[in-house]
Amino acid sequence: MKNIDVAIIMGSDSDLEVMKEAAILLDEFKIGNEVTIISAHRTPERLYRFAKDARQRGIKVIIAAAGGAAHLPGMTASLTNIPVIGVPIKTKTMDGLDSFLSIAQMPPGVPVATVAINGSRNAAILAMQILAISQDILYKRLEDFKKTLENTVEDKALELGKIGFEKYLTTQKRQK
Amino acid sequence: MKNIDVAIIMGSDSDLEVMKEAAILLDEFKIGNEVTIISAHRTPERLYRFAKDARQRGIKVIIAAAGGAAHLPGMTASLTNIPVIGVPIKTKTMDGLDSFLSIAQMPPGVPVATVAINGSRNAAILAMQILAISQDILYKRLEDFKKTLENTVEDKALELGKIGFEKYLTTQKRQK
Amino acid sequence: MKNIDVAIIMGSDSDLEVMKEAAILLDEFKIGNEVTIISAHRTPERLYRFAKDARQRGIKVIIAAAGGAAHLPGMTASLTNIPVIGVPIKTKTMDGLDSFLSIAQMPPGVPVATVAINGSRNAAILAMQILAISQDILYKRLEDFKKTLENTVEDKALELGKIGFEKYLTTQKRQK
Amino acid sequence: MKNIDVAIIMGSDSDLEVMKEAAILLDEFKIGNEVTIISAHRTPERLYRFAKDARQRGIKVIIAAAGGAAHLPGMTASLTNIPVIGVPIKTKTMDGLDSFLSIAQMPPGVPVATVAINGSRNAAILAMQILAISQDILYKRLEDFKKTLENTVEDKALELGKIGFEKYLTTQKRQK
Amino acid sequence: MKNIDVAIIMGSDSDLEVMKEAAILLDEFKIGNEVTIISAHRTPERLYRFAKDARQRGIKVIIAAAGGAAHLPGMTASLTNIPVIGVPIKTKTMDGLDSFLSIAQMPPGVPVATVAINGSRNAAILAMQILAISQDILYKRLEDFKKTLENTVEDKALELGKIGFEKYLTTQKRQK
Amino acid sequence: MKNIDVAIIMGSDSDLEVMKEAAILLDEFKIGNEVTIISAHRTPERLYRFAKDARQRGIKVIIAAAGGAAHLPGMTASLTNIPVIGVPIKTKTMDGLDSFLSIAQMPPGVPVATVAINGSRNAAILAMQILAISQDILYKRLEDFKKTLENTVEDKALELGKIGFEKYLTTQKRQK
Amino acid sequence: MKNIDVAIIMGSDSDLEVMKEAAILLDEFKIGNEVTIISAHRTPERLYRFAKDARQRGIKVIIAAAGGAAHLPGMTASLTNIPVIGVPIKTKTMDGLDSFLSIAQMPPGVPVATVAINGSRNAAILAMQILAISQDILYKRLEDFKKTLENTVEDKALELGKIGFEKYLTTQKRQK
Amino acid sequence: MKNIDVAIIMGSDSDLEVMKEAAILLDEFKIGNEVTIISAHRTPERLYRFAKDARQRGIKVIIAAAGGAAHLPGMTASLTNIPVIGVPIKTKTMDGLDSFLSIAQMPPGVPVATVAINGSRNAAILAMQILAISQDILYKRLEDFKKTLENTVEDKALELGKIGFEKYLTTQKRQK
Repeated sequence: MKNIDVAIIMGSDSDLEVMKEAAILLDEFKIGNEVTIISAHRTPERLYRFAKDARQRGIKVIIAAAGGAAHLPGMTASLTNIPVIGVPIKTKTMDGLDSFLSIAQMPPGVPVATVAINGSRNAAILAMQILAISQDILYKRLEDFKKTLENTVEDKALELGKIGFEKYLTTQKRQK
Repeated sequence: MKNIDVAIIMGSDSDLEVMKEAAILLDEFKIGNEVTIISAHRTPERLYRFAKDARQRGIKVIIAAAGGAAHLPGMTASLTNIPVIGVPIKTKTMDGLDSFLSIAQMPPGVPVATVAINGSRNAAILAMQILAISQDILYKRLEDFKKTLENTVEDKALELGKIGFEKYLTTQKRQK
Repeated sequence: MKNIDVAIIMGSDSDLEVMKEAAILLDEFKIGNEVTIISAHRTPERLYRFAKDARQRGIKVIIAAAGGAAHLPGMTASLTNIPVIGVPIKTKTMDGLDSFLSIAQMPPGVPVATVAINGSRNAAILAMQILAISQDILYKRLEDFKKTLENTVEDKALELGKIGFEKYLTTQKRQK
Repeated sequence: MKNIDVAIIMGSDSDLEVMKEAAILLDEFKIGNEVTIISAHRTPERLYRFAKDARQRGIKVIIAAAGGAAHLPGMTASLTNIPVIGVPIKTKTMDGLDSFLSIAQMPPGVPVATVAINGSRNAAILAMQILAISQDILYKRLEDFKKTLENTVEDKALELGKIGFEKYLTTQKRQK
Repeated sequence: MKNIDVAIIMGSDSDLEVMKEAAILLDEFKIGNEVTIISAHRTPERLYRFAKDARQRGIKVIIAAAGGAAHLPGMTASLTNIPVIGVPIKTKTMDGLDSFLSIAQMPPGVPVATVAINGSRNAAILAMQILAISQDILYKRLEDFKKTLENTVEDKALELGKIGFEKYLTTQKRQK
Repeated sequence: MKNIDVAIIMGSDSDLEVMKEAAILLDEFKIGNEVTIISAHRTPERLYRFAKDARQRGIKVIIAAAGGAAHLPGMTASLTNIPVIGVPIKTKTMDGLDSFLSIAQMPPGVPVATVAINGSRNAAILAMQILAISQDILYKRLEDFKKTLENTVEDKALELGKIGFEKYLTTQKRQK
Repeated sequence: MKNIDVAIIMGSDSDLEVMKEAAILLDEFKIGNEVTIISAHRTPERLYRFAKDARQRGIKVIIAAAGGAAHLPGMTASLTNIPVIGVPIKTKTMDGLDSFLSIAQMPPGVPVATVAINGSRNAAILAMQILAISQDILYKRLEDFKKTLENTVEDKALELGKIGFEKYLTTQKRQK
Repeated sequence: MKNIDVAIIMGSDSDLEVMKEAAILLDEFKIGNEVTIISAHRTPERLYRFAKDARQRGIKVIIAAAGGAAHLPGMTASLTNIPVIGVPIKTKTMDGLDSFLSIAQMPPGVPVATVAINGSRNAAILAMQILAISQDILYKRLEDFKKTLENTVEDKALELGKIGFEKYLTTQKRQK
């Protein structure tokens, strides 16, 4: 059975639509991962158990997503020394600024590695970069992935140069 | 021995300079209170014990102050049903907006009664208004207090009208 | 006839869509409540009468909602010592930040217990936590309610763990 | 006895240092004015009486200054149809943004003429522009005042051109 | 021929959808008004002519609306001493904050009476309050208008109290 | 073959919908231009080559557009002394404020000429104003263009004055 | 007599302390420049004359600085097709955000090349980059300048590496 | 010779006062580290060489600090797959919000692990948590460190409880 290297936790299943991207990318790289729901506010004891057991269960990186007064990443980080990557979820009322500040502005002693608002894919890449420190093969794969991103941009640039922007806009799907 | 009706907790003793105002006001009203330091991030287990025991210890209202990614009020509220009043502490880097949003933007199910940034006196008054629901004498004292505030403004207005603003500014201490 | 423990007032009937959630939750808990419209700006005298009579009418907590230059909660608090819970309503032009600051940044002497933007459900829960200080049965019911929230999250986590996120997203309604 | 054309009211005598500028300028123009303290939150009844009597007392324009959850200008405007000019006072914790939004974002039906943060001088000029609609002599004086401001800038520009910026900076007092 | 008491100018005809509300309200009160387009940036000379002639043409109040780097209200105010009411138009990219600050934060000497974002109706009411200083009949009409707003709220409150919020929400049109 | 005076680069082809406006306007003025995709983050070496060769290729002005942590304009400016015009692209999560600050707040030594959020047309006009410093004919054409903008506003104002705003709104397409 | 290639204008002589840096840098590069005060709000006619004559006087780039509701750069740009570089001056009450948005958020047709808040040195460099398009010697000097900045950083890095950060901090003046 | 596990880079030596805290903490934990200055804007080639060689030099984590349009962390991340921890430096004009957004809002594919504004100590702890994934001894030391933080808070709480807040404030140094 494959080890769970990365745990993806989120405060509510409404975050899943955003966070699935992290799981999909980790799956593509064949990184063992689990996806679950832990609410700092509604299931504080579940959070406690999860954080306290995580290292022993072999988890190496935790990705924690939350919105609004987003306490999940910071509280997880207070309970373990496994690196915690925080993903601020965009909110309806403050555009994600509340999530952002609640996750990033941690006091000295308890860091959270904050990525962009809704940055689930980047959370997964950062988790793999961390794992790749001691895994040359994974590092190589990330280099290839970076190369692919580069090639994609260059292909698009080539295409755009060839057919012009009017035609490009009508025939090409736009990359996000 | 007097009961501890109000607990004043804060994330760091650097918040004490602001929060002492709450204790001083409660003392003036002879409301039993305790002042202590509990960090959601540095002492999560202490927080857990405090919140779980509070009702049994007879605490009726909790005032919780924190700055930055301010998780103390919200995490306390997740662990008890005693009303939690949150005081956002002004921070050096984001002017208190981070504390503010981290405390107020709680998800459905776990409210925090947020007051103004550095609003320690108002936290104490709100705590007493809550206690006064079932204590007519305390309610009466709060009415008198309100009347005193009113009189102070009216006395100042009278003085200002009598001596004019130039003289007022030079001879009068300004109310904050 | 049941006593009105909680009054829910709002500046405009356009706030009712948000605020009805508070009434529905109080009804579920069988807490006597009334819902009415009082505009600080359009009906200042109505506000005055309401606030001055509230204690005598037996009202124990006031929930006041308003948007924009949201003066209703603060002005109510200036006229009574019943605890006032302020609900900032999301606005079209400033995303609710204006409502938020207008309600929370009260001067020393006149607190408003501010909850999250559009946080009507939390206003109701906070009101009940306040009532529950002296009502053990209500406190017990709030603990049960908290437990239910906890169980809901745990059930979802269990389901998610069992069927995986792809299937979960297609078959499950998402919790808000 | 000269009529009081302009009333300058403020929520606290701590605003007086800023607001005296309005009174000084009105005095220079020999516009009858009064300066007083009225707190929407601490003296709601005083506010009520003031606003209700103002028109009868011959007051033509009200300048109202307040900080934080600044309700004074808006509540005054709700109680009279005399034009109310709002001056947001800079606050310690939110840089005056709270005062600004609390004053300007009034709902349809009850306008406040908001000027810049700490803009007491502009409040006085605006009050005089309003009075000058039906007073040609005052209008003429405002035109002269504008001309003086223009000349001051042009004199400074001339001086700067003549002596260069190094010398200008060392010898000249800077205009605010 | 009726005098043009109020000029409503705006930077672009895209602002007309918002600003027509001001004209409609002035028409209801039978206040002579004109509506036109003047762009500070695209037609600076037209602005110059308009502002310089306005007093002579009998205009008593100018309502100026603009969005983004909204210079129209301030530049108009720099060219005349007729009171200028600024209406910040909500923008697509900064939610109107840019318009708001560009209009309100004027330097000492040149005030603009700023109303809420998209606050065209309030601009019209403020203009009439200014005119009403010397017109008792208009003042009386504004008092009646205020009374109507008050009655509308009270009627709605009555209805809401009678039929309850569920029924109210389904049968009643919501006031904005 | 016509020289490429202006290069329009952007971080992603999702920016093309906005940026095509710059190319269309340059085409109308018959200014040689190229449109391509260069990502500071995904194709740093492509950026390096582009910036290093640009002057030699005869490029006189670079328009660089990017969103979020928008590094493209600033990094381009760090690699060349050709003037770089930065266009902040509106983002989904922070409304373009992130793009704006990432582009404009450059340290001393490396300027970027920032235009409005999504201001692609203005970037093109600014590029042409720069080229027109030494090209009287182009300067003349820009003056004509400015005149056209002016005439358009004046025609609309005339039409609006003639038919009134109700009719105008129904029959006229609104200018953006 | 040397031509005035760059005009540095500012709304108030209080901006001179910041803006002198632009003049000093242009002087170092021996670029003809003039420094003067023009207030869009206080001297609109002076602004009009300046902008209308600038091209004829041989001015090639205009640097315009202003704070608060900063209209000077945009209004200058509305009156000429010489490129206008806008410098937002940091304000006391809104930290420069008001200046920033008032300058950068210009409507289509009238661009301002906005640099960082208080970015006077960058305004001068940008002006020279614009002039250098057709002046190879100036371009070469800017390349040398860039090289100097690079060397300064590298020398500091070398020093820091040699003596360590404790010693570096005590013995070295810090670069801004 | 000890391996350099962590590189601490910053855009300017003015950031050193803040960033030295990271080096000091790493030294305490005996983690090999280097401190140097690399400016994305002034030394782009130095950045390129650094990032490209880092993995080969054995560097496992990079801490990158920058202020304003803070491109150093993101550009480093674009050139390597070593995890990059970004430290936003507080700026004079935008309070660090610009640094924050410029660092955190990275596009998909290139993450930066952002910590709090001026959060240099947390950057060091996060770096060590990353290293500790495969080093049980270091993990143990981080647990001890966390325990020490916990004990410090508890000791302070004890002291505060014993002597009361008045005495505590006068005799105790406050923890930051």
